[in-house]
Formats: sequence, structure tokens, C-alpha cells
Amino acid sequence: MSRAGRRSGDSGTRAAILDSARRQFAEHGYDGATIRAIASGAGVDPALVHHFYGTKERLFAAAMQLPVIPSEVISAALADTSRRPEVTLGTHMVASALALWESEEVRGPFLGLLRSAMTSEQATAMLREFITEAILAPVAAVTNDTDPGSAPFRASLIASQVLGLALTRYLLGLGPIASAGRDELVAAIGPNIDRYLTGDLN
Amino acid sequence: MSRAGRRSGDSGTRAAILDSARRQFAEHGYDGATIRAIASGAGVDPALVHHFYGTKERLFAAAMQLPVIPSEVISAALADTSRRPEVTLGTHMVASALALWESEEVRGPFLGLLRSAMTSEQATAMLREFITEAILAPVAAVTNDTDPGSAPFRASLIASQVLGLALTRYLLGLGPIASAGRDELVAAIGPNIDRYLTGDLN
Repeated sequence: MSRAGRRSGDSGTRAAILDSARRQFAEHGYDGATIRAIASGAGVDPALVHHFYGTKERLFAAAMQLPVIPSEVISAALADTSRRPEVTLGTHMVASALALWESEEVRGPFLGLLRSAMTSEQATAMLREFITEAILAPVAAVTNDTDPGSAPFRASLIASQVLGLALTRYLLGLGPIASAGRDELVAAIGPNIDRYLTGDLN
Repeated sequence: MSRAGRRSGDSGTRAAILDSARRQFAEHGYDGATIRAIASGAGVDPALVHHFYGTKERLFAAAMQLPVIPSEVISAALADTSRRPEVTLGTHMVASALALWESEEVRGPFLGLLRSAMTSEQATAMLREFITEAILAPVAAVTNDTDPGSAPFRASLIASQVLGLALTRYLLGLGPIASAGRDELVAAIGPNIDRYLTGDLN
């Protein structure tokens, strides 16, 4: 796509950066794409990319039209739990995921990303790397710290349940899990997430 | 595809039935496809389809090249658990699923079906109906029978965790869950399945 044409000023520059980011993420994956290469592809200075988007995660979220920044949602959930100790972290994570997905604005891009990861090797690598860095790492940081070695495993078990929920509820529309109310799902699934976070897994 | 040509005898007839089955399942879904219509599409008598394949589930498994019949695997797992009471049913279900998936012969067609369900509405409906009838129903039959109304919900929660495991381990190849040994996964996930089977979900 030409970087000239109708675009002008900030919005044209932002659009050129997002175009370049999508190309770089698709070609080199989440880990391999660099702010420097994305800036170069858009014909701008790397400092401008940092100025507009801050981190690579925020740039990825903007390029993929994710309306939320996963690690920020997780941090917010953690802060909320520490204020209300009667809510377990697992319960809160399920409630947050469902609240986000019930918004069409979030669900659409999220399911689009998941769908493309199912069918394209490149998209798979990109999503895998993104989930590992932006979601598993912050989750791992709050899991059972008596055994820090188990944190990445615990985080990936949580991903298996949370992504499995999205798969069966929204993509497959599987009977009762698709029609269940949010509170019912939070009560049913939350404690299983708590076990993955801090329970005995052996 | 022409039903004449090089085919002859039993194998030609079987191939014509499987062709017709794939068309009918794709067009009308698992529930909507009938043995009668499949037989008619293959130009044979319905009795012959029953003779070759027995049930609609077995015919579906043959048409989709699934090398196992899900409800039979579940029944076998149940029988095994009742002989060895120290093995919980949830643990046994996770072990059985992993043992099946570690075989390339099973994993390939299974992931193919899951992938196509992610991207085609028709394939989604077909897989949803098949999972509901051939997998959720037998699972629901062994869940907490003090509250039979909860059985379909319990079965769909199990599906969310088991399909989420397949998604993260095989399709996304997500870090530790992709490289973990079978025993480690069975110990970590089995008890969560047991809770979905018989635990308090409220």
C-alpha cells in the first residue's frame, strides 16, 4: 500500500505504522518484529512509533484492532482482587474474560485472531508468541510462588481452560456452555482456575 | 462424483456411501443427515448402509476418517475405571484423550475437523451436533446423578477443558502445555475434570 495518497498528518502516519506493523508481525512473528523495522517500513523514526504506541504490545493490539491491552486487563484484575479479598483471582479472571467477550467490539477481533491461528502457521506463531509474552508472563507472576518453576506451566493450563471456554461458547456454540449465564460460568470455572493458580498439580 | 467408473463390489459401494455421507453431513449437519438420504445419494438400500456401518455415529466416524468411535472410547474408559477404583474418571478421561491424540492417525483427522469447524459455519454445526450427541450425551450419563438437570452443563464444561487442551497443546503449541509429558498433564488436569463431573459448581 502506498504511504502517500489521501492520508495526511498524524492519522496518515498512524495508519502507515499500523500497516507496516501488520506486515512485520505476519512475516516475522510477534517476537521477531521490531519497532525499528516497523518504523522503517512506515518511513518514520522509531521514536515516533514509541511516542504513538509506547510498547510493542500496545502496537500489536492497535494493529490487530484489539480494543484492550491484555496485560493491562490482567493487572487491573489483580488490583481489584487485592481490594476485595472475598473474590478469588480465578473467579475474577473468568468474570473479566466473559465481560470482555460479551462486548462484540472485543469478541470479533479476538475470535478472528483465534480463527486465523487455527488455519495459518504464521498466524499461529504470532498468536503463540503474543499469548506467551503478554498473557502468560503476567499470569505466571501471580501463580503459586512457593514453586516459581511451575509458573509457566500453571499459566498455560489457565490458557487451555480460558481459550477452551471461548472455543466452545463462541466458536462452536456448544449447548449449555453457550447459553449459560455469566455468573453460572464464573461459579463453575473460577475454582478450577484457582487450582491451576495455586493448587497441588502433582 | 460419478458412482460408476473404476469402483466395483463392496469397496466401490462403501466408497459411494462415504461420499454420499460426507455430502449429506456437510449439507444437513449431523442431526439432519439421515441414513435413508445417504443411502439414496449412494444409490443403495438403507439396509445396506446399516449392514456396513451400524449406527450414524460409526458412519460419521468412517466418513470423517476418525479411527475411533468416541462413544465407544468413553464406554471403554468407564468400564476400566470401574475395574480400578483408585483411578478417578476425570484422570482417566484426560489420559485416554492424550493417548489417542499422541497417535498421528487420530490427531490428524481430529485437528482437521476442529480447524474446519473454526472457519466454516456448516462444519461448525456438524461438529457441534456430533459432539453433543456422541460425546456430551455419554459423558452426561456418568456425571453427578444427584442433580440430573446439571448433566449437559457438566459435560459441556468438560468439553471446554478437553478441547482447550487440544487447542493449546497441538494447534497453538503453547509453551509448557505443548512440551509437558502425558503423566504431568493427567495429574494437573484430571482433578479439574473430576470437579466438573461431580463437584459443587454453584
